[in-house]
Amino acid sequence: MASSFSELRTVSWKDGTVVLIDQTKLPNRLSFCRCSEVGEVALAIRNMVVRGAPAIGVTAAMGLALVATRSKASDKKTLLKDLEAAAELLRATRPTAVNLQWGLERIIERARSASADVEVLRGAVVDEAVRMGEEDVEANRSIGRFGAELVDDGDVIMTHCNAGALATVGYGTAQGIMRAAKEQGKRIQAFVLETRPALQGSRLTAYELLRDGFHVTVLADTAAGYVMSRKMVGKVIVGADRILSTGHVFNKIGTYQLAVLAQKHGIPLICAAPSSTFDLKSKLTDVEIEQRSPDEVVKVRGKRIAPKGVQVLNPAFDVTPPELIYAISTELGLIRPVSEERIRRILRQTLS
Amino acid sequence: MASSFSELRTVSWKDGTVVLIDQTKLPNRLSFCRCSEVGEVALAIRNMVVRGAPAIGVTAAMGLALVATRSKASDKKTLLKDLEAAAELLRATRPTAVNLQWGLERIIERARSASADVEVLRGAVVDEAVRMGEEDVEANRSIGRFGAELVDDGDVIMTHCNAGALATVGYGTAQGIMRAAKEQGKRIQAFVLETRPALQGSRLTAYELLRDGFHVTVLADTAAGYVMSRKMVGKVIVGADRILSTGHVFNKIGTYQLAVLAQKHGIPLICAAPSSTFDLKSKLTDVEIEQRSPDEVVKVRGKRIAPKGVQVLNPAFDVTPPELIYAISTELGLIRPVSEERIRRILRQTLS
Repeated sequence: MASSFSELRTVSWKDGTVVLIDQTKLPNRLSFCRCSEVGEVALAIRNMVVRGAPAIGVTAAMGLALVATRSKASDKKTLLKDLEAAAELLRATRPTAVNLQWGLERIIERARSASADVEVLRGAVVDEAVRMGEEDVEANRSIGRFGAELVDDGDVIMTHCNAGALATVGYGTAQGIMRAAKEQGKRIQAFVLETRPALQGSRLTAYELLRDGFHVTVLADTAAGYVMSRKMVGKVIVGADRILSTGHVFNKIGTYQLAVLAQKHGIPLICAAPSSTFDLKSKLTDVEIEQRSPDEVVKVRGKRIAPKGVQVLNPAFDVTPPELIYAISTELGLIRPVSEERIRRILRQTLS
Repeated sequence: MASSFSELRTVSWKDGTVVLIDQTKLPNRLSFCRCSEVGEVALAIRNMVVRGAPAIGVTAAMGLALVATRSKASDKKTLLKDLEAAAELLRATRPTAVNLQWGLERIIERARSASADVEVLRGAVVDEAVRMGEEDVEANRSIGRFGAELVDDGDVIMTHCNAGALATVGYGTAQGIMRAAKEQGKRIQAFVLETRPALQGSRLTAYELLRDGFHVTVLADTAAGYVMSRKMVGKVIVGADRILSTGHVFNKIGTYQLAVLAQKHGIPLICAAPSSTFDLKSKLTDVEIEQRSPDEVVKVRGKRIAPKGVQVLNPAFDVTPPELIYAISTELGLIRPVSEERIRRILRQTLS
């Protein structure tokens, strides 16, 4: 057992395969899922064996690396076709997180610009996917450092869903800020909302924070407002699945209501995300909110909790407007207050 | 199978015993629990075999009726002592709902004022407990009628926890308003929040509304804000476990945050409760908020969903201030806006 989640890798490239922590088995068992075919990767993303916007971005990129190494194509054009077909398959697995598209596009770009020599091209794609994984961890450490500036010694930090090591290649975004604050010697406590329906909070965030030595308290999602009203929460820190140029944040269902509650109680809500989570092109109405299976709501771990015959609404994400967000922490710095002008200014740095 | 929940009784006195619908078995099985001893009644309340403020008020009263009939006391003074000891036991089962105290006090009062003839006294206590059950259903029909004035044809009504037939002797308070609106021919739909941790929404409210022919959609608690922001909710209707003279409502954990969200989105939140739910004596700080077992949060139907080693906060109730409540529907009429003056005015009618 690794001593810390900072050292474990949620997604990695090993011996020509993609190795994922199987998150459907947590917190009961830490096990790994090895994918040798892109179809297995697509299924792993769809079934949330791997989840979290940054993690699925890199997983998708590594899925294409599998295609690059396994394709029988003998010329660049055919290999590009194979990669584009696989990208199509992977893109369809989860519609909301923009990192998935970003990961696929970056690999396709790399392949297009690579040498015409097919063997060189295969290597370039694998290198790029592996590099994306390494960059993700580095970016998260920077996000953590910038975000931790906003965390006070003694803070109780409420967090929703999992934007931790398990949502990224390693270290985490929202949980990265918590790790960085702890590494700086700040004494912080975690209030982890369980995050129905898929319970990423109680299953995943509680697990990884506990393993890293945090004091972790789990609460039902219904208790968020109550503990805020009792002045028990210092900061709310969440991740993001897509951030528009206007500063609207798509994130796990329940984030929006947390943001409304945080504002009502004067608690800063900080959003943590790498630049790959920003989508400066789409408008609010362009983004599809994924509706997931009713089974996630009417069953818990296979046990039915609602009568047959009910309808279910199960949106996986919601949208939080910029006026409810105190700051966004990116690897390029803090965006505060959240505005289109500041978002564009920070992100232009990546292009310079 | 009864054709409608309006006909079923959650709590009843049958052949000298207290018969309860066993709510821990729902929605999978409609079964009954028969109590012959007051200790069994106390356990049924504690373990939420029966729950809901009005239902536990009447259940506790019937628990004392069991003591009255089974006590070996041969004089009034001894019987009163037995009743008071049993009331002590029952009072300790759940601290927040005031109806429990109200039910016990009403029976003790009745016993004190009854004839010195022990056999007559036994009969008077049983009659009083049975009458309280009948009055509860009548009160709920009135609450329903008054509250339904605020419901529009075509409304989607969001509801939290269970304030239905299963939370009362029959018909329900919040769900009573929904039933009355439907009986008036208004076409309404139910959005039922699952209500973690004990899942009274998905397990109980969805079940009883479905049986009564409602169109029922179940949502995770995290989706409340999202559907409100999408203008999919016309009214929010909830019950209450205790209402103070100031209009502060103690109700199932999650009610407060729903009320904040409803106000943010301009959606009227209606609270439904009989006059027995009002506590005009206590102050906000006097009322104990029950903390329930961590197991309710870290397990679902026996399956563990959080890692060992986490702390848990599991408050069963929260407090919603009057400024977030559009109206309170009681059997004596609507209280709107919610203010101490209007509450005292409505409740004085019971004393006149």
